Amino acid sequence: MGKKIDLNCDMGESFGAYHIGNDEALMGLVTSANIACGAHAGDPLVMDRTVRLAARHGVSIGAHPGFPDLAGFGRRAMQLTPEEVENTVLYQVGALAAFARSAGSGLAHVKPHGALYNMAARDIDVARAIARGVARAGVDVIVVGLAGSVMIEAAREAGLRVAREGFADRAYEADGSLRSRKLEGAVIHDPETAAERAVQIARDGVVTACTGEEVPLQVDTLCVHGDTPGAIEIAKAIRRRLAEAGVEVVPLRCLAL
Amino acid sequence: MGKKIDLNCDMGESFGAYHIGNDEALMGLVTSANIACGAHAGDPLVMDRTVRLAARHGVSIGAHPGFPDLAGFGRRAMQLTPEEVENTVLYQVGALAAFARSAGSGLAHVKPHGALYNMAARDIDVARAIARGVARAGVDVIVVGLAGSVMIEAAREAGLRVAREGFADRAYEADGSLRSRKLEGAVIHDPETAAERAVQIARDGVVTACTGEEVPLQVDTLCVHGDTPGAIEIAKAIRRRLAEAGVEVVPLRCLAL
Amino acid sequence: MGKKIDLNCDMGESFGAYHIGNDEALMGLVTSANIACGAHAGDPLVMDRTVRLAARHGVSIGAHPGFPDLAGFGRRAMQLTPEEVENTVLYQVGALAAFARSAGSGLAHVKPHGALYNMAARDIDVARAIARGVARAGVDVIVVGLAGSVMIEAAREAGLRVAREGFADRAYEADGSLRSRKLEGAVIHDPETAAERAVQIARDGVVTACTGEEVPLQVDTLCVHGDTPGAIEIAKAIRRRLAEAGVEVVPLRCLAL
Amino acid sequence: MGKKIDLNCDMGESFGAYHIGNDEALMGLVTSANIACGAHAGDPLVMDRTVRLAARHGVSIGAHPGFPDLAGFGRRAMQLTPEEVENTVLYQVGALAAFARSAGSGLAHVKPHGALYNMAARDIDVARAIARGVARAGVDVIVVGLAGSVMIEAAREAGLRVAREGFADRAYEADGSLRSRKLEGAVIHDPETAAERAVQIARDGVVTACTGEEVPLQVDTLCVHGDTPGAIEIAKAIRRRLAEAGVEVVPLRCLAL
Repeated sequence: MGKKIDLNCDMGESFGAYHIGNDEALMGLVTSANIACGAHAGDPLVMDRTVRLAARHGVSIGAHPGFPDLAGFGRRAMQLTPEEVENTVLYQVGALAAFARSAGSGLAHVKPHGALYNMAARDIDVARAIARGVARAGVDVIVVGLAGSVMIEAAREAGLRVAREGFADRAYEADGSLRSRKLEGAVIHDPETAAERAVQIARDGVVTACTGEEVPLQVDTLCVHGDTPGAIEIAKAIRRRLAEAGVEVVPLRCLAL
Repeated sequence: MGKKIDLNCDMGESFGAYHIGNDEALMGLVTSANIACGAHAGDPLVMDRTVRLAARHGVSIGAHPGFPDLAGFGRRAMQLTPEEVENTVLYQVGALAAFARSAGSGLAHVKPHGALYNMAARDIDVARAIARGVARAGVDVIVVGLAGSVMIEAAREAGLRVAREGFADRAYEADGSLRSRKLEGAVIHDPETAAERAVQIARDGVVTACTGEEVPLQVDTLCVHGDTPGAIEIAKAIRRRLAEAGVEVVPLRCLAL
Repeated sequence: MGKKIDLNCDMGESFGAYHIGNDEALMGLVTSANIACGAHAGDPLVMDRTVRLAARHGVSIGAHPGFPDLAGFGRRAMQLTPEEVENTVLYQVGALAAFARSAGSGLAHVKPHGALYNMAARDIDVARAIARGVARAGVDVIVVGLAGSVMIEAAREAGLRVAREGFADRAYEADGSLRSRKLEGAVIHDPETAAERAVQIARDGVVTACTGEEVPLQVDTLCVHGDTPGAIEIAKAIRRRLAEAGVEVVPLRCLAL
Repeated sequence: MGKKIDLNCDMGESFGAYHIGNDEALMGLVTSANIACGAHAGDPLVMDRTVRLAARHGVSIGAHPGFPDLAGFGRRAMQLTPEEVENTVLYQVGALAAFARSAGSGLAHVKPHGALYNMAARDIDVARAIARGVARAGVDVIVVGLAGSVMIEAAREAGLRVAREGFADRAYEADGSLRSRKLEGAVIHDPETAAERAVQIARDGVVTACTGEEVPLQVDTLCVHGDTPGAIEIAKAIRRRLAEAGVEVVPLRCLAL
């Protein structure tokens, strides 16, 4: 059986008169869309438009819940209690799921956003709160979390399917963790280099760490950043190189997770 | 077959550290709860708590979508486009429905709140936008609207079940419309008078207008205000008088609408 | 004495991660900046940055208070009470004035935004509420209002200086009122036509109505839209044609109002 | 010269239809009011009302800036950058100062709220950002910070006057720090015990730690909590006991800081 991988991308981050991202172009290049739910970004009209766009492209529709902090775009850590995290996740997932159903599709996955994603990767209480919120939504969705992190563990504990996420455009440390954005070389800007790493991760299950050695990295989905300069070029290069390497790119809902 | 009526009440209007209303006491006196959805009032924790409280009491769980105006508590008219109304209703209904499902209940009804309710009663475009938003939520819910208003008409057009609402503690004009709150005598404060009118409406299908004549008024549900002084006393008096008159008080979901 | 006019433009409408407008380029072309105050747009960082940018260019710093409706960008009418309008104006003006002082400048003017501007032009209660809010800020500022509207009247009543505003890129009716945006030909897109009208208004005190006749139009400031395609080209054309016509373009604070 | 102390209390925390606190009663018992500025609590109408109430009572008017998190009442830590802290403080102080001026009073002090207060007490970068924001407001105000904390240090560095704050109803550790609220006995509920400690702190400059020894504690102002049960009783007991002990209670603006 050939190798398969999903490409996911954050979408629907516009708000009212404010436009962000390039959803139209990227929707044709990825297979799963993480759609903002009105807390850190997005609004009901944007959610509606983005869900329909994803449905037209056969892209898996996912909820992308974040901290209720529009001014900070969900990128600032906030000390919510686990109960607050759980219920804000249920709220956001429930809202997005209604748009997905209305578009004749189902909600396929949930991926926490920004600071919530980062906290979920290292704080088991936050991860479990997210998992409870998702589980309570009562739709059979996949939780996307950082490969090797406690988010994966917490989602499995809660009986949810999980997709382990990797990054073709981020450097990894020798222990398999992501290199901090505060350090030099944390982000890879060259499309071909990113594409090559995508192949390495997807086909071979390894990634070359910034220290030079190859470390194992099992992932089900690769994140394609939509808001970086050259996002389209990186996405195109990844698609081309994966195709050349015989790796099939399929939506999350089509993976056996 | 005996007469039946529902008693509905706005609930779950607290927000964060802010507490409003007397949900604990009122939940035992009414049969349907209109629960704020986080736009004009309410937050995920409050929604969760209120939905569970309603479920424990066997009270019909309803979404109470309003304008996204917490500072104005949804009581200030806002000129949203029909498309904005439709999608904000779908958003709010979707979120509340997720909490209802998670509590092992279904969403039974939707009642627009405040300024949105008032606009829906007289503006067919707003009413139709609400109906579309509810219909798209894809759950078989009842729309609660002012008896005789275009909201009822628009919901029926959209193929939705409707519940016609009346007010035991509000004066009516000779044409069957509600007396404006700006006019004297618009609100009835005496519990026994309100309760007597509740019986008149529920059992006899008429109400005595402020001009003295009896006018026909067909309603399926009576609104019990939760935020007025004496709310508990009025609710208790209505329950007692309806029981004495042989009118059965049942949740919206148990009415043949 | 030669003719003088001010050119004003809305600025500082970005919010958090959301970028709108072209403030850097436009700041060199206009003489007064209406800076969003965090209600319909803008945030403290954006206000700080925009105020400093205006100060560096010698552009008059103005507060641009709007309805507290970020999702609607202040363009949706909201039924606030006069007391609410008055106090939200004072709040927003007070906040912006602090940034202006901190940048070593003073607050020169206040121009209501969007739906608030439109309501202020035709509803004397709203106009007076705005004037009271501005007057209470206790800084000697100029109120910018639609020429010929009740906003001008209300500000004068309150003892405030006023600047009458006209639009070079909008069609006028024969009675001197703005042609509704719902009607064809309401907006002028050609830079040279707009520039020609700017000269006609600034130098001659008249404008050719859409019915063909010249109607008198006394204005102190012309609005330059920053968010339309071709905004920069229109602004440049206006500057050039006004210079050729011998009309001096000066900041609001330098006009004898 | 006799001993003097200020009693400060958080005020103006209502929002729209939501009412919190007992400002009317407490305003007659304290000498300085920390008034919410619309970010974590408060709105323009509430600010106006509270500022006027303080002015009528001769109570020092202070700004009480907090994190922009109404849902969390400013009690949840948020990772803002120093630049964001500085500018949100300037924004909130500027807005409140406008209401103070409009009421014929000046802004006397600034006290950070909730999670921002706690971060300012232990994180010098946050403390300095707050101090810069206050200094830029350009009004000669006093910064209120936890006695012995880096907030005091940062405000002094910035050339601002400071008031060191103590708590009569909180237990202290042997090193003079506040006992964590997570530990037993952290909060003192008995009015007479609190009042006795107020005298001990204000007159003698010491406090009995929970370990039994007396530790020095130099404070200029004592915090009176407004939102605890028995707040009024505690405030009255403190006033009475301070009067009996010959300690004069005066507004912050009347202290030689």
